[in-house]
Amino acid sequence: MRAYVYVSLKKSVLDPQGKTIQAALRKMGYKGLEDVRQGKYFELTLDGGLSREEAQAEVERIAREVLTNPVIEEFQCSLVE
Amino acid sequence: MRAYVYVSLKKSVLDPQGKTIQAALRKMGYKGLEDVRQGKYFELTLDGGLSREEAQAEVERIAREVLTNPVIEEFQCSLVE
Repeated sequence: MRAYVYVSLKKSVLDPQGKTIQAALRKMGYKGLEDVRQGKYFELTLDGGLSREEAQAEVERIAREVLTNPVIEEFQCSLVE
Repeated sequence: MRAYVYVSLKKSVLDPQGKTIQAALRKMGYKGLEDVRQGKYFELTLDGGLSREEAQAEVERIAREVLTNPVIEEFQCSLVE
């Protein structure tokens, strides 16, 4: 089973890295961009010892307690068989 | 329109950052993890001036030419209205 965790800055938090990428892309001539935000992405491969519910709970716990800084970041999880 | 670009190391490339996260999680007592890989994640907001096909092409061009190092990385794009 595989789990994907996407961690991004909360909407209310300024993302200077995203702004820098956006400015660079505009200077390079890419069009139509209104905003760019950057985040992190984790791919967790789980062994077969966990049921789907246990895996979901474990991945959410890892994302919440370790991979995300809850003060400024939020996360999304998805589980794929 | 919003586009999501996920950039990760190619499967054939060693991911020391992912390995470090995996070792740390194991030490902290999280179970059932076989592998962890880390990547980057970009959220691009596009203005309304592009059709869906144009937007898809532009986002793929940005991902390929700017956001990804094609020697060691690969990307996936998805477009959401």
